[in-house]
Amino acid sequence: MNLLKSHKTFNGQTQFWSHESETTKTLMKFSTFIPENPMGAIIWLSGLTCNEENFITKAGVQRFLSDHQIMVICPDTSPRGLNLPGEHDSYDFGSGAGFYVNATTDGYRDHYKMEDYIVKDIVSILKNEFKMSKISIMGHSMGGHGALVLGLRHPHLFTSISAFSPIVHPSVCPWGEKAFTGYLGEDKNTWYKYDATELINRGFKHANKILIHQGTHDEFLTRELMTTDFIDACAASEQSEQVVFCDEYDHSYYFISTFIEDHILHHKKYLLKK
Amino acid sequence: MNLLKSHKTFNGQTQFWSHESETTKTLMKFSTFIPENPMGAIIWLSGLTCNEENFITKAGVQRFLSDHQIMVICPDTSPRGLNLPGEHDSYDFGSGAGFYVNATTDGYRDHYKMEDYIVKDIVSILKNEFKMSKISIMGHSMGGHGALVLGLRHPHLFTSISAFSPIVHPSVCPWGEKAFTGYLGEDKNTWYKYDATELINRGFKHANKILIHQGTHDEFLTRELMTTDFIDACAASEQSEQVVFCDEYDHSYYFISTFIEDHILHHKKYLLKK
Repeated sequence: MNLLKSHKTFNGQTQFWSHESETTKTLMKFSTFIPENPMGAIIWLSGLTCNEENFITKAGVQRFLSDHQIMVICPDTSPRGLNLPGEHDSYDFGSGAGFYVNATTDGYRDHYKMEDYIVKDIVSILKNEFKMSKISIMGHSMGGHGALVLGLRHPHLFTSISAFSPIVHPSVCPWGEKAFTGYLGEDKNTWYKYDATELINRGFKHANKILIHQGTHDEFLTRELMTTDFIDACAASEQSEQVVFCDEYDHSYYFISTFIEDHILHHKKYLLKK
Repeated sequence: MNLLKSHKTFNGQTQFWSHESETTKTLMKFSTFIPENPMGAIIWLSGLTCNEENFITKAGVQRFLSDHQIMVICPDTSPRGLNLPGEHDSYDFGSGAGFYVNATTDGYRDHYKMEDYIVKDIVSILKNEFKMSKISIMGHSMGGHGALVLGLRHPHLFTSISAFSPIVHPSVCPWGEKAFTGYLGEDKNTWYKYDATELINRGFKHANKILIHQGTHDEFLTRELMTTDFIDACAASEQSEQVVFCDEYDHSYYFISTFIEDHILHHKKYLLKK
């Protein structure tokens, strides 16, 4: 791991790192905020077009992480530096849009293993390099989808789950259909593994309450996010959730900055429980 | 004025605007955060390479402006859309580097009137469009220089002054020498008008205490910022100041985000005084 930059922020350090990933077979970057004496860690998964910088720069989260002694790690949203067919042609597939799946299609399956990258590389870095024993997961939009799916698929790895404006039912929305076709292929029977609503419908569960904030003026709410599908699935399978609809808020980091404290407190409650 | 974008943030709106300026004879942009029932306004002046977006995106200030009912307005750092000789050749002169002076050199004097743009256009917008009667001023680096200089030159316009990492003595540092030569010409006798240390030395004063935060690990401290020159000048002329040196902090927005609450409280004290 190479430390690229370090900036004192509140009572800790905002840092930018790179490392060679055996999973993606590329140089990967991530950012961290590390307070004094961190007592737990949260993985933040970013949305479409983002990289390792967006959240740590825009969310105003360091204040709360510093106060509550929790570290955050923010991975990039895809491998970089490749030139696969179609990889750089659109904002919602390929670079900047890994969707946190292990791709199975030609070309992509060798590098776009973002599920493994998070649950193996990033989890290993947190445990071995940063000595964190308890890890929670959260994210925004595509990264909210990632947090829900990886949290439900690996409940033993992640203490608690939360999301802002998540894509909760990707199998049936345009963003998800495009990404899953490209990464997983035309056979929709394989898609449920990366669809939070379908996972809940199939009995996947997490022991702790899942927190979601969703703006009512989010321009993607009805077409891409479909929050109520997840609420309905949780109700039917008794998965504990708290979905907070926030009047007038949109899909932006201004929305995230407004409610990020609630998410840090949510994870703190579970991370610090004995 | 055209409202380009509006994002609900805490109990207010983060907004992006454009307007045709008669001062710069260009289309100018600024951002605002407007809480419910604002009781005063602060102008934020940004540093080199910045535009109207940096502060409102990175500083985490909305939380405090929302709580304390103060609005902020963040102008761009130079005219845009021109193609003057040398205007786009370097990061520290021309576009993105207006230095808050009224230029007198050929070409630049017709558009680079950033002092007038702030004290006429922006002040007028605050008073007439946003109905703000009391206005304070703050900024970072080049914008910290701008806040000090404009606050000292127009103490009747600005209730209070603060700065992060300001260029306090531009006449004798590389950034200032380059900018002043380009905007004001070779005759250094004209430069003092835009040099906070020289203004203090010549008897310019502000009635209220000037607050400055400066990181000790700021990579520009000794070569460009020269904070102690300003402290010495204030001591000699009995200008009230509070300069806080902050151990380990650098020149970045991570530093600003850590101490921005102190600046909002500083200005609130004076803005709300009857």
